[in-house]
Amino acid sequence: VVEVVQGLKKEKGEKEKEGSGFTLKTPKGTKDYDERDMAIREKIFSTVTRIFKKHGATTIDTPVFELKEILAGKYGEDSKLIYDLEDQGGEKCSLRYDLTVPFARYLAENSITNLKRYHIAKVYRRDNPAMNRGRFREFYQCDFDIAGLYDPMIPDAEGLRVMTEILEGIDVGDFVIKINHRKILDGMFEVCGVPADKFRQISSAVDKLDKMSWEDVKKEMTDEKGLAPDVADRIGEYVKLKGSSELCDTLAADAGLSKNANAMKGVEDMRLLLQYLDVLGVLPRVSFDLSLARGLDYYTGVIYEAVVLRSPSVQNGEQVGVGSIAAGGRYDELVGMFSGKTKIPCVGVSIGVERIFALLSSRTDRATLKSSPTQVYVFGVGEGFLLERMQIAKRLWDAGINAEFMYKTKPRSQNQFDACDRGRVPLAVWVGKECREAGKVKVRNMTRVEDGEEREVEVGFEGVVGEVRRRLGVLEGLGVEV
Amino acid sequence: VVEVVQGLKKEKGEKEKEGSGFTLKTPKGTKDYDERDMAIREKIFSTVTRIFKKHGATTIDTPVFELKEILAGKYGEDSKLIYDLEDQGGEKCSLRYDLTVPFARYLAENSITNLKRYHIAKVYRRDNPAMNRGRFREFYQCDFDIAGLYDPMIPDAEGLRVMTEILEGIDVGDFVIKINHRKILDGMFEVCGVPADKFRQISSAVDKLDKMSWEDVKKEMTDEKGLAPDVADRIGEYVKLKGSSELCDTLAADAGLSKNANAMKGVEDMRLLLQYLDVLGVLPRVSFDLSLARGLDYYTGVIYEAVVLRSPSVQNGEQVGVGSIAAGGRYDELVGMFSGKTKIPCVGVSIGVERIFALLSSRTDRATLKSSPTQVYVFGVGEGFLLERMQIAKRLWDAGINAEFMYKTKPRSQNQFDACDRGRVPLAVWVGKECREAGKVKVRNMTRVEDGEEREVEVGFEGVVGEVRRRLGVLEGLGVEV
Repeated sequence: VVEVVQGLKKEKGEKEKEGSGFTLKTPKGTKDYDERDMAIREKIFSTVTRIFKKHGATTIDTPVFELKEILAGKYGEDSKLIYDLEDQGGEKCSLRYDLTVPFARYLAENSITNLKRYHIAKVYRRDNPAMNRGRFREFYQCDFDIAGLYDPMIPDAEGLRVMTEILEGIDVGDFVIKINHRKILDGMFEVCGVPADKFRQISSAVDKLDKMSWEDVKKEMTDEKGLAPDVADRIGEYVKLKGSSELCDTLAADAGLSKNANAMKGVEDMRLLLQYLDVLGVLPRVSFDLSLARGLDYYTGVIYEAVVLRSPSVQNGEQVGVGSIAAGGRYDELVGMFSGKTKIPCVGVSIGVERIFALLSSRTDRATLKSSPTQVYVFGVGEGFLLERMQIAKRLWDAGINAEFMYKTKPRSQNQFDACDRGRVPLAVWVGKECREAGKVKVRNMTRVEDGEEREVEVGFEGVVGEVRRRLGVLEGLGVEV
Repeated sequence: VVEVVQGLKKEKGEKEKEGSGFTLKTPKGTKDYDERDMAIREKIFSTVTRIFKKHGATTIDTPVFELKEILAGKYGEDSKLIYDLEDQGGEKCSLRYDLTVPFARYLAENSITNLKRYHIAKVYRRDNPAMNRGRFREFYQCDFDIAGLYDPMIPDAEGLRVMTEILEGIDVGDFVIKINHRKILDGMFEVCGVPADKFRQISSAVDKLDKMSWEDVKKEMTDEKGLAPDVADRIGEYVKLKGSSELCDTLAADAGLSKNANAMKGVEDMRLLLQYLDVLGVLPRVSFDLSLARGLDYYTGVIYEAVVLRSPSVQNGEQVGVGSIAAGGRYDELVGMFSGKTKIPCVGVSIGVERIFALLSSRTDRATLKSSPTQVYVFGVGEGFLLERMQIAKRLWDAGINAEFMYKTKPRSQNQFDACDRGRVPLAVWVGKECREAGKVKVRNMTRVEDGEEREVEVGFEGVVGEVRRRLGVLEGLGVEV
């Protein structure tokens, strides 16, 4: 796969402007979306938006860049991936790294104490791109967050329901949502003997268990992060555990953890959450998994991450591995980092659109995708009849019908057929000599669908809109995309 | 107005994080959009998108930043307003200044010879912001462009039709589209005696005539740009001229211009364009105006700019002045700057959303705007009945109905009423003791609209979805936003 991608890059990206000495391409880790990509992306966005709204979320928008100091100290080890703007004599700014920190800044700045909002927008990370697996430097996030002081685990449960509805709605294939709790993780680290100042570092190492073996993770803990091997081994026993509500009992009975107040608070939360998830019909999708850690600093409670198990699309006998496609968790302290005294508890879900896009894209037949919105192509025959075609198009546009004609005074027939074909345009209006002489045009079905009508009917100027509307209705009823 | 704005800024923007020593705000010239702003913006986008699609445009997306060298030498005097990204060890990149240059880069890179595309996205200019008049450093553009080698003025006419449809569709009030032609401008400069190397500079000065008096523009031409006063005076005579097709005759009869091949080519184009605009029903909106110049370097043919004449909203007896709200023109050489030999002629329209937003926003009653999508609020009374409320919400969500409930085990009645009221939620489902005991809930109309039904009806668990759907249908039929 890597070779193919590199080959494509050579062929397409490395086009040099003659004599200019520079390569015509998008910046590293970014890409253009053509009209077919956009048709797939808009389908994803419309499903995501519909479900966010189903849960009562409104939307807000924040700038693409924030003051640099707003982002500082929020992302732990990942802060090095933040893009800064050049200081051109003004404020120091950075491109947003996610939508969560700007959301927290927004709440604090406007003294908002509760809000359920969604935000679909681009974020930026100077990471090592892996374009074919959907990892980019510029990518969309679709976030749904609930801010406000509520009773435990109720908004958290709704966040997981939203995630489930979206992944089922988009049909990403079989998936599982791993859940864990920062308080259980921290309690576990404490019980195992990890020094308090190493919690987040060791947590980062645990977070790599979905990509690395335990041996490698242990090596990172001991060799790189200076943890004693026996401490690492004790962690190794815990992170094997996974299950559902019975795991709450196991942990509550654990000799070490049961004496740790922090961990027991987390277990209590998990019990409640799993009960709510059961009522909301989400439980079958969920795995309580002690190996889930999540890298970001700002999480304080439940954390989760959705992983596709078997992608429905398989390339060369290998699954298209895309890893985590949605994630989130509770962050009760982040708003307070901006507002000072007022603490606004929050919980959120973020959908990784680019990875879902990669999945859907690999199983979509791009050739049959109708990316053009055109419903009627206005053909000119013989002398071209440009002004008559314009008159017809004006009538159709005035009636709200999507119509095109060729921008030539005397277009060639074949070129018009090709344009109509490429856009998969279902209907044509035929403008010829009879149009100028008798005000008559022909409406023709351009699809291969048998609609039980004459393929072509002649109508007067005044009748075009009515006939086009009627025929579009008939085709739509037969399942044609119009 | 300035004082009021400054007052607001002090009050709202300058919130300091306790002890952190920095101000909680968005970067200069940028702003957040709250849920009500977004409701207005989405209404604009949906109209714009519908009309772009009506004309057969597909959409593409390009990255927010481009390689710096792509943007270099495209914007004349305005290049100083480009935001650069900091060099953090990689390629030199800049935030896009408009959507036109990235579109040209896209066409050249992918060797596309014809495409009709729209693109709605943010662009960035380090300009002096004037927030209350809709001038920002980060703002949306809605662009529609036609690339391809076609017969003269046909795509140009469609661009103007698109602009007209959008401004009428959004109902911005009375507007006029000024049109001119770069070849006429250049011919006029030549005839008046402007040295060839000063054409673009003098053009920039003429472009300011909508904001400055002729005396000030003349001063800029002579004092700053070193033009001879008699040359400036000759220009002054021409830029007074405006009209429609009769102006083509006037110019064709002009002693100086009629001998200038460049100008006469422009006049010929204008004649054809005005004929097409007449057929497309756009002529009444258009004024052929020799004072229109447009600042950007890349235009080569017809140029246009829409101005609101009388805004329907008047504040303190003064009109809300927003100036140009849409603009565009023909740029036949831009793609060739990237592709080398292949010249791809293009013409486009750009809609200035922020200014239209400022207009619409000032005449919208924000208090009555329904920004929440919620259709049903699930109330808990007495003991709260959280699990029952969750079961009801699950049923509603499963059926695709937008529903919310309060995230409290025993919510207070008043808080639930307030939430329902704030979101202007039309229906409620009432969950009380009878729910647990007999599986019965109540569906209630929460609007003040008399729908000819019992205000409140009791239904069984199984009947909730059906009854809610029916009642939403009744309310919708009565014009309630559901």
